[in-house]
Amino acid sequence: MNKINIEQKFSLFTEKWTPKVIAQSNGQLVKIAKGQGELIWHSHDNEDELFIVFKGKLTLKFRDGSVSLNPGELYVVPKGVEHCPVADEETHFLMVEPASTAHTGSIKSKETVEFSDQEWI
Amino acid sequence: MNKINIEQKFSLFTEKWTPKVIAQSNGQLVKIAKGQGELIWHSHDNEDELFIVFKGKLTLKFRDGSVSLNPGELYVVPKGVEHCPVADEETHFLMVEPASTAHTGSIKSKETVEFSDQEWI
Repeated sequence: MNKINIEQKFSLFTEKWTPKVIAQSNGQLVKIAKGQGELIWHSHDNEDELFIVFKGKLTLKFRDGSVSLNPGELYVVPKGVEHCPVADEETHFLMVEPASTAHTGSIKSKETVEFSDQEWI
Repeated sequence: MNKINIEQKFSLFTEKWTPKVIAQSNGQLVKIAKGQGELIWHSHDNEDELFIVFKGKLTLKFRDGSVSLNPGELYVVPKGVEHCPVADEETHFLMVEPASTAHTGSIKSKETVEFSDQEWI
């Protein structure tokens, strides 16, 4: 494989809340996404979801609180935990999660990216 | 869990080629390490190893070439591929790999960190 420049990959798309796959490792996919506004409440029954923020601020709302991630900060949402990602400004983040992870869990919205539409960049 | 500030975690240790665990997700560990000089040639029979560089330059030598990673660059060393990490200057990097990943594979050197000595920070 060639090395991957994460910043360069962010320059390839503008859509919000639409993860793009940039690498795979041990059956998990590395995805990057841009967020602004609010996605939807959802959970992943069987998959932990690792986030690292590169730009902006990503707030993960939980039913019992929230965490706000700045650039260089990392958080793991454990499987089964309901969360809703929110970003006031344009925010860039990376995720590592199993290839089996559905974008918005069992919840569907107009933002939901189906497996068949998941794009490698 | 609390959010993790990666830069702050790097400030907690000075050892080279001694990965520290900062998080776990889906049976994989997120580790950070500092490197300077050369580790040793090794491979991991069953585990891919994902690298992201945060500071300096990490060169991964392979038997048939090499790749040099600058800050913000990502690379996955596939399972079974012999590699030797090298850094001319002090280099900070993050790895994601299964908990089963032995530090230097089946090769042991004075730098090798055994599972029992693997430290969470």
